Amino acid sequence: MAAPDTVFAPELAVSQWFNTPVPLSLAGLRGRPVFLHSFQLLCPGCVAQAIPQIRRIEQVFAGSDLQIIGLHTVFEHHAAMSPVTLQAFLHEYRLKSPVAVDLAEEGSDIPVTMQRYELQGTPSSVLIGRDGAILHQIFGVEDDIAVGARIAMALAASPSKRSHEASTDTTCADGRCATPTSSVSAQ
Amino acid sequence: MAAPDTVFAPELAVSQWFNTPVPLSLAGLRGRPVFLHSFQLLCPGCVAQAIPQIRRIEQVFAGSDLQIIGLHTVFEHHAAMSPVTLQAFLHEYRLKSPVAVDLAEEGSDIPVTMQRYELQGTPSSVLIGRDGAILHQIFGVEDDIAVGARIAMALAASPSKRSHEASTDTTCADGRCATPTSSVSAQ
Amino acid sequence: MAAPDTVFAPELAVSQWFNTPVPLSLAGLRGRPVFLHSFQLLCPGCVAQAIPQIRRIEQVFAGSDLQIIGLHTVFEHHAAMSPVTLQAFLHEYRLKSPVAVDLAEEGSDIPVTMQRYELQGTPSSVLIGRDGAILHQIFGVEDDIAVGARIAMALAASPSKRSHEASTDTTCADGRCATPTSSVSAQ
Amino acid sequence: MAAPDTVFAPELAVSQWFNTPVPLSLAGLRGRPVFLHSFQLLCPGCVAQAIPQIRRIEQVFAGSDLQIIGLHTVFEHHAAMSPVTLQAFLHEYRLKSPVAVDLAEEGSDIPVTMQRYELQGTPSSVLIGRDGAILHQIFGVEDDIAVGARIAMALAASPSKRSHEASTDTTCADGRCATPTSSVSAQ
Repeated sequence: MAAPDTVFAPELAVSQWFNTPVPLSLAGLRGRPVFLHSFQLLCPGCVAQAIPQIRRIEQVFAGSDLQIIGLHTVFEHHAAMSPVTLQAFLHEYRLKSPVAVDLAEEGSDIPVTMQRYELQGTPSSVLIGRDGAILHQIFGVEDDIAVGARIAMALAASPSKRSHEASTDTTCADGRCATPTSSVSAQ
Repeated sequence: MAAPDTVFAPELAVSQWFNTPVPLSLAGLRGRPVFLHSFQLLCPGCVAQAIPQIRRIEQVFAGSDLQIIGLHTVFEHHAAMSPVTLQAFLHEYRLKSPVAVDLAEEGSDIPVTMQRYELQGTPSSVLIGRDGAILHQIFGVEDDIAVGARIAMALAASPSKRSHEASTDTTCADGRCATPTSSVSAQ
Repeated sequence: MAAPDTVFAPELAVSQWFNTPVPLSLAGLRGRPVFLHSFQLLCPGCVAQAIPQIRRIEQVFAGSDLQIIGLHTVFEHHAAMSPVTLQAFLHEYRLKSPVAVDLAEEGSDIPVTMQRYELQGTPSSVLIGRDGAILHQIFGVEDDIAVGARIAMALAASPSKRSHEASTDTTCADGRCATPTSSVSAQ
Repeated sequence: MAAPDTVFAPELAVSQWFNTPVPLSLAGLRGRPVFLHSFQLLCPGCVAQAIPQIRRIEQVFAGSDLQIIGLHTVFEHHAAMSPVTLQAFLHEYRLKSPVAVDLAEEGSDIPVTMQRYELQGTPSSVLIGRDGAILHQIFGVEDDIAVGARIAMALAASPSKRSHEASTDTTCADGRCATPTSSVSAQ
């Protein structure tokens, strides 16, 4: 049961995926928390701060059922940031988690998903709860401790019904925190 | 009910307190998670990494019931790190949370609490759960994201009975995550 | 008069220039020290370390006759690092000094100037003296203090005859060091 | 021949030396550039920024005749920063170059040398030329590139008469720059 002011995360509109064999959707990920990060490969703040933070998030939460998704939201220098350049970028910067190219819309510089979330720019991030609600959305990069705490809180939240049978033990070891519902991740 | 391999945190042995009007004890803090950090004021790694991280933890978890406690565990250069120097250090480095001087033991370079926890050196930290069990102990400084996640998990864990009446609001906003006791409410 | 083991810097081979109204050549710059830095826009070490250092060099030596030249030496992901992407990169990363696209050679992944200098990879840098000799060449990024010292030494070296009339006062103020031969820069 | 506005560096007033078998004086160092850095061991900016920079300066200019001198200018928390604490500090922070305790003056919080140079606080630094003139004085920590350039300029300046016979070769290698007059350092 969502709180009265719950805002559900709009679905992604994607023209191309990298780092995943099959396209993903928020609908299909319901029951798992999602960390959605929006970036552009020529955005200095993204490259210097956000992408390194994503790699740290990938490491710390590798054992949990958190789903990290990158969204390449090109709203300037479109010719300079084509998918072929993005592919080389992902290779060089060693991002492991799935990355989606936000769908371009004719007649607009702003791609579709970026419009739906009303993102102010890059880097931005959106933390989505197990129930699909937006828990937090921010333009810029937040302090690592706060990010770690937020994601852990999302992981610790009551899972949806279908994961009721999951273990309730929380385990943090070797710099990684496994969620109480990590069995969900195996489904 | 603790897991079979639970190790309970030994009590602190303290000769002097700073930043608190009354002495603290782990027994008195039962029901709240405790982040205990051991340092020496002339330890370069403590000053460059651990103390700044403690200040970030103080900020992010200011609205929660986490208790941060510093432990000045002098095991070398004893004359150089007297309480008068510690007091000036705490003033200059703007630590807000309580700091205890670990009790010196005649005939030993290692103070008493440091012995009880078998700390390997400084900086070290110990995360203690609401039930008094040691959740994590480490020599060195851990990645901020992992620290944030660990503390949030400790905050989200079931509180002891006497905190049943606690607030049921979970709030993470403006880089701060408010109290854990929300977990009860949500379950 | 060059020392017996002097190696003169080979001329640049360039297909396109940015940040300069006219093409530059080492021959035309004889008499001034040149800091030549080789990079690729998708090279993480270049973006995280070398380019920020170049911006600091631009600032500190703005009042001197040092000529900074960037060389975009693409030897991998050629399609991903085209001139249109480079142009947007230079705009976003606010490089002020001239940047040359190293001339591609058919049948080779390594562009021509990169071959001539036998650069091992990116980032690399070459410091060239007033007489055109290579003073220092390195693969990677050197400590800022050493870089500042090296460039100052190159600036302090005897200028060529045509700047004999230059002032011999060295001035360092406001974070900038003007060379004894700064009058040369006005020519 | 000094410029009309030359200010000569006042002599040091010292109660105790560390890291040197014999007391030093600016008079005795005439002919060599001196980098004088003022600090307090409980000053956060000194410990976080200035001291690490001094260690980098020690490394880069190890082969030159630059003389680095630390000045412990205690003007607050006097009891907390006694010589015994300073000695342990120098051991832990691995400063290799000589450090002087600025002479306390009865009835004043500000020690004598600090008064003579009219230092505004810590960290401060003063670069003194071969002729004893103050080349640069600053409160705070300057950018590494500018510091490296300034010191190299001081090293490249005409040495005093007694070093006329010195080599005129400048050598920069392995991150170190040897001065043209490095033979002076052997005196």
